Amino acid sequence: MLPIRKTAKTSKRGILERLDAGEIVIGDGGFVFALEKRGYVKAGPWTPEATVEHPEAVRQLHREFLRAGSNVLQTFTFYASEDKLENRGNYVAEKISCQKVNEAACDIAREVANEGDALVAGGVSQTPSYLSCKDKTEVKAAFRKQLEVFMKKNVDFLIAEYFEHVEEAVWAVEVLKESGKPVAATMCIGPEGDMHGVSPGQCAVQLVKAGASIVGVNCHFDPETCVETVRLMKEGLQAAKLKAHLMCQPLAFHTPDCGKQGFIDLPEFPFGLEPRIATRWDIQKYARKAYDVGIRFIGGCCGFEPYHIRAIAEELAPERGFLPEASEKHGTWGDNLSMHTKPWVRARARKEYWENLKPASGRPYCPCMSKPDGWGVTKGAKELMQQKEATTEQQLKELFQKKKY
Amino acid sequence: MLPIRKTAKTSKRGILERLDAGEIVIGDGGFVFALEKRGYVKAGPWTPEATVEHPEAVRQLHREFLRAGSNVLQTFTFYASEDKLENRGNYVAEKISCQKVNEAACDIAREVANEGDALVAGGVSQTPSYLSCKDKTEVKAAFRKQLEVFMKKNVDFLIAEYFEHVEEAVWAVEVLKESGKPVAATMCIGPEGDMHGVSPGQCAVQLVKAGASIVGVNCHFDPETCVETVRLMKEGLQAAKLKAHLMCQPLAFHTPDCGKQGFIDLPEFPFGLEPRIATRWDIQKYARKAYDVGIRFIGGCCGFEPYHIRAIAEELAPERGFLPEASEKHGTWGDNLSMHTKPWVRARARKEYWENLKPASGRPYCPCMSKPDGWGVTKGAKELMQQKEATTEQQLKELFQKKKY
Amino acid sequence: MLPIRKTAKTSKRGILERLDAGEIVIGDGGFVFALEKRGYVKAGPWTPEATVEHPEAVRQLHREFLRAGSNVLQTFTFYASEDKLENRGNYVAEKISCQKVNEAACDIAREVANEGDALVAGGVSQTPSYLSCKDKTEVKAAFRKQLEVFMKKNVDFLIAEYFEHVEEAVWAVEVLKESGKPVAATMCIGPEGDMHGVSPGQCAVQLVKAGASIVGVNCHFDPETCVETVRLMKEGLQAAKLKAHLMCQPLAFHTPDCGKQGFIDLPEFPFGLEPRIATRWDIQKYARKAYDVGIRFIGGCCGFEPYHIRAIAEELAPERGFLPEASEKHGTWGDNLSMHTKPWVRARARKEYWENLKPASGRPYCPCMSKPDGWGVTKGAKELMQQKEATTEQQLKELFQKKKY
Amino acid sequence: MLPIRKTAKTSKRGILERLDAGEIVIGDGGFVFALEKRGYVKAGPWTPEATVEHPEAVRQLHREFLRAGSNVLQTFTFYASEDKLENRGNYVAEKISCQKVNEAACDIAREVANEGDALVAGGVSQTPSYLSCKDKTEVKAAFRKQLEVFMKKNVDFLIAEYFEHVEEAVWAVEVLKESGKPVAATMCIGPEGDMHGVSPGQCAVQLVKAGASIVGVNCHFDPETCVETVRLMKEGLQAAKLKAHLMCQPLAFHTPDCGKQGFIDLPEFPFGLEPRIATRWDIQKYARKAYDVGIRFIGGCCGFEPYHIRAIAEELAPERGFLPEASEKHGTWGDNLSMHTKPWVRARARKEYWENLKPASGRPYCPCMSKPDGWGVTKGAKELMQQKEATTEQQLKELFQKKKY
Repeated sequence: MLPIRKTAKTSKRGILERLDAGEIVIGDGGFVFALEKRGYVKAGPWTPEATVEHPEAVRQLHREFLRAGSNVLQTFTFYASEDKLENRGNYVAEKISCQKVNEAACDIAREVANEGDALVAGGVSQTPSYLSCKDKTEVKAAFRKQLEVFMKKNVDFLIAEYFEHVEEAVWAVEVLKESGKPVAATMCIGPEGDMHGVSPGQCAVQLVKAGASIVGVNCHFDPETCVETVRLMKEGLQAAKLKAHLMCQPLAFHTPDCGKQGFIDLPEFPFGLEPRIATRWDIQKYARKAYDVGIRFIGGCCGFEPYHIRAIAEELAPERGFLPEASEKHGTWGDNLSMHTKPWVRARARKEYWENLKPASGRPYCPCMSKPDGWGVTKGAKELMQQKEATTEQQLKELFQKKKY
Repeated sequence: MLPIRKTAKTSKRGILERLDAGEIVIGDGGFVFALEKRGYVKAGPWTPEATVEHPEAVRQLHREFLRAGSNVLQTFTFYASEDKLENRGNYVAEKISCQKVNEAACDIAREVANEGDALVAGGVSQTPSYLSCKDKTEVKAAFRKQLEVFMKKNVDFLIAEYFEHVEEAVWAVEVLKESGKPVAATMCIGPEGDMHGVSPGQCAVQLVKAGASIVGVNCHFDPETCVETVRLMKEGLQAAKLKAHLMCQPLAFHTPDCGKQGFIDLPEFPFGLEPRIATRWDIQKYARKAYDVGIRFIGGCCGFEPYHIRAIAEELAPERGFLPEASEKHGTWGDNLSMHTKPWVRARARKEYWENLKPASGRPYCPCMSKPDGWGVTKGAKELMQQKEATTEQQLKELFQKKKY
Repeated sequence: MLPIRKTAKTSKRGILERLDAGEIVIGDGGFVFALEKRGYVKAGPWTPEATVEHPEAVRQLHREFLRAGSNVLQTFTFYASEDKLENRGNYVAEKISCQKVNEAACDIAREVANEGDALVAGGVSQTPSYLSCKDKTEVKAAFRKQLEVFMKKNVDFLIAEYFEHVEEAVWAVEVLKESGKPVAATMCIGPEGDMHGVSPGQCAVQLVKAGASIVGVNCHFDPETCVETVRLMKEGLQAAKLKAHLMCQPLAFHTPDCGKQGFIDLPEFPFGLEPRIATRWDIQKYARKAYDVGIRFIGGCCGFEPYHIRAIAEELAPERGFLPEASEKHGTWGDNLSMHTKPWVRARARKEYWENLKPASGRPYCPCMSKPDGWGVTKGAKELMQQKEATTEQQLKELFQKKKY
Repeated sequence: MLPIRKTAKTSKRGILERLDAGEIVIGDGGFVFALEKRGYVKAGPWTPEATVEHPEAVRQLHREFLRAGSNVLQTFTFYASEDKLENRGNYVAEKISCQKVNEAACDIAREVANEGDALVAGGVSQTPSYLSCKDKTEVKAAFRKQLEVFMKKNVDFLIAEYFEHVEEAVWAVEVLKESGKPVAATMCIGPEGDMHGVSPGQCAVQLVKAGASIVGVNCHFDPETCVETVRLMKEGLQAAKLKAHLMCQPLAFHTPDCGKQGFIDLPEFPFGLEPRIATRWDIQKYARKAYDVGIRFIGGCCGFEPYHIRAIAEELAPERGFLPEASEKHGTWGDNLSMHTKPWVRARARKEYWENLKPASGRPYCPCMSKPDGWGVTKGAKELMQQKEATTEQQLKELFQKKKY
């Protein structure tokens, strides 16, 4: 058995140092979904002010990911741009400033990162400003505001993540590059590309040209789809003779039935996704596929709990030479069942068993797939976005027309 | 909307005071499964020494349940009897004494309980001693050892839980009653009764006669099955003209396909149960059914995360007059989606939507039900039983009777 | 390989001669469902006048069952009692007398039976007279009217089939016994017994006491359930120290989800049952189970097509010593695929493949089970029952008891 | 309600006369699958000699389709080319000449067609000669041999159907055109095109240029996929400024999971397809979609039973002005249930009910989709075919390599 490497203060090497050396870097999991289930984040606005209101809960989750093997702790600053927070003013229990939220997120991530071999990454994501057609200057200003905090708190590198439009992602990368720190960029797109129909390959090319050293996808789709999308990005970069590291942080939900805009359009989003949750074995398969495609920054997004991250670390332990600390409480491929009192449970303590298990839903009255609400709307939605004058009413009208399906 | 009641130090009333007054008491969720996913507990031995090794993780989970509405925090002492811990000596990373584990569990529960309106319950569960045919004196000694800690730490009341054999449960109740504190007793059985074929109604009668003030079931079966089992207990008590409060703490997994011994025999146990996880809406339906049946101590067991407990508190908020603190981050029946940016997601902000949703598994290659190993393991079971005891034949007969299916 | 036995005129032995000698007798399949799909019978009234209107279609179906291995051709006289035909007067295209329908049915069956080694069985089934509370005399008169035709046409033996109430079945047997011919009696009940709660065992006892030489079940439930019900009948007879031959003619539909009244209450009845249709391999398993339980008159009911009957004959060919004529066009366990052009289809030419195949529905948006209307129709049922009779309350009580689920 | 039009001898108009006038022409269903289940055809070789061995069975099936509304009776000459029959010499029970088989097929079809308003179509399909790389002359000779029979028997028009390679289909059309009779051509392809990667649009263009007046698809895919494929053909023809009538004869099986080569690669082919069988309502939806896309020759292939053809005729009755004869025994959208004895079954006598029903499989241990054996092989298979030197061993090797998936 491979040794467990205790998380410990080490003189840390930077993200590019690691990736350039061919190392596997393990990301973390999804904060908004995990903290929603723990009672600290509200679905919909996905309230990042938890960093100020309940720092102990955020800290604990960081710590669990660290134990599970994460080499990167992302600041919990998702949807924490000032325009986003202002938009839903009435949601914020007490008036908490955008700056305070972002600063607290950095402090907590740093505190936990210092307990082990992990880097802190400051993250920005798509803004309401872009969607409401604010111009480049305004959108960039929103990113810059968050970047100021990241610089003040001296994060190790930066991630622009969860972008549906490559144009906005490019703007974000341009802003983040001003810092001089390494920049990663991931879009929440599938193989069909961004909301304007720009292919994954083309998205990757634009992001690298804008200055990203690491590109890939995050959120919106299941692991299999995300790996395939990153593979297409890789092909695009190769065709353009560009080089970049590849990164993948998918959902931990099975979503073979979702349309172009991902799991948000599935009828189960966000409160009925349980039957779709990936097992640890699904995630081990994902980790292997991602590795085989050449992805070296491998993590997760919504739905990823600490044990999913551990599954990545366990699957790639042979390549990395060690197991994560949380494997103290987990036998590879279930071998901790070998001492169960029931002999037929002991018989499950082997790879072949879990690898081939087809888990039942226990829900005989439920289907296996759903029709996404956005089903068939892709084309209409695309047009709308392209015109960028899309009012709600127009969108609704289109939706209702499609409803006849 | 009902007011949110912040958890706050209040002069607490005891468990029987509350139940006698007709109040609803909300239990907590399953520690071993939740902490396993967080990386602190090993499946199989379900290592309770986390209380000593990682008190912050145990504390955080208690706190989340408290915020979610729990009125009872159970000490994390499941499978923490001395004989159990000794049995798997080699699992324990460092030598941690049984007493230390149990004391730490009490301290942590008390610390968090003091942050709100919750009681601390000390818990004992079935022992290897009983299964290996130790006699009454030895088995009782094991319970008494744990009880000593609970008395020293002055827990508020006691729970004997997770018993498959009513005989052992009765012994546990008898020991716990020596303390003078109120005693609750729950068995991990379904409508078919205990492993010797004693019906739920008969089990309840025996437990109440032994001194339990609260009886019911926990673990092993899904909410629907558990409520039905408690209903049968109630019928048994009524027929015997006995009175007791009723309690229910089921799995948060859908297990319509499991046999008499519950979810452990399902092929997915314990690492492939994800598709069976209950949604918050499933739990609201459970809470309502439990209430309608007359159960007033309503909680959960394996699979219950904080948001499941919150679902109980939200469903029964009209009866209780208030919402739990964690509802600050949750709109009843999804109404926090009413401000989502996508109109078709906003359309999900209503009870009818979530109540009627039939969530898809996203797994078209998987079945809806599994055949429990219990169907096929007769041989394994036979071997095991033959090595052991007199009850062998009875159990085997039961297995064979089931086989006729 | 076993020889194929061509159907040929032989000096035929009677039904009891065969069964007493320990032979397997193969029944035929369901005429109303098969002819409905071929365009000759109307679902609902299940119009038996096809024997007069389209004798060639009825004859062809008899012939297919004969080729498939049937030893018994039942006259197509289901729901052909005079009261039934009169009830739906307006359905009958031209005025065709009850007698004419029954006579034509006998003639056609006899014509085809003469082409091979098959007997003709005249059949009666439950009557509207009974359901509308006509007295014993009137109900018996209806049966006697059909019997007269059977005697005139000299059928080989008689079957009273498709009875939900054992009382009416007993009356039918009593009438049929007047003929002096052997009488078989099958009820359309499951393990829970008849509509008044008489157990299968008790039903069997009453039928045998009334004079039936062969008892069993037909229709309403899937093969597995029917075999189990006949097993219970067998137990009842043994307990009463009575002897009779056993018979089973189930649906060729999977109905694990149906309630006490069988597949009629399933939402898919009668026009959406396709996904439930049994494969030939399912039927081979049924034939084996039926044989193992001691049933020797093995056939089918609604949903059984000729290839299903052939599957019975192929499964039991080792016991019978020959294959049916239709096996000229079928290799046992798919071995005719061994010369398919595609190698991966050739790989399917073996028993293990088909025996273990879990066939997919190709319907990812559909569930695996349905809730029978029987759960929800209490109100409708109540109204119906209230307009009618004394048994109402008993039935209602039963419905309510089920409801507790 | 629309009138039922009895099938009756009428002075018949030709196929093009009808289609040119904008009429809907209803095809027939699949003979090999239907006759296999009736016991007259062997799966695999799909033995067409039934026309000689059991003419009454073939005649009866034709008659049922006629009653159901078919305007075209196809001679049962599928896989009846001389090379195909010779290939499996040992299968043919007695030595029956290819000519005799084809002649009998023509005679039977003509006899039944004369009973109503139907045309006889002589059909040829893909040949082993082409697959084993015989040259154009040899392949055409095989078609010509069958054509000679069709001319002698004076069929009304000709259909080249079930071609996976457009090149061979073109050759067939060229031969059939020599007759001077109208020629229809359908390929067994999906939206991805033929086995050489020629798109549906391109296939259509080549077939029309070769002389086909009617083009479309048959077999291999479910109704939805086939309609989509014909739609692509239509687009191709429009782009090429060509005109032709459109035709569609899909499977009556749901096959959302099949790969490029269609349902043959599904693990359930051919003996486990039952759960995939389309309901009559599925077929009504198909008929409507086909009509909306502009298809006017609408029929079926494998899996289509007479009641499926009737469903087409009933759905399009408003456009056609009448119902088929078999509707005497069927109420539109189930309205014949309105007189059922159970009120909750009567409640099913309406369009909304059947239109929205999601029928359950009754198979909780089975999945919703399968992985086709050809999964992922498409590319490899294509290469193989293109090289045309593909030996079995090469194919097998490729298959095994893919197996790792």
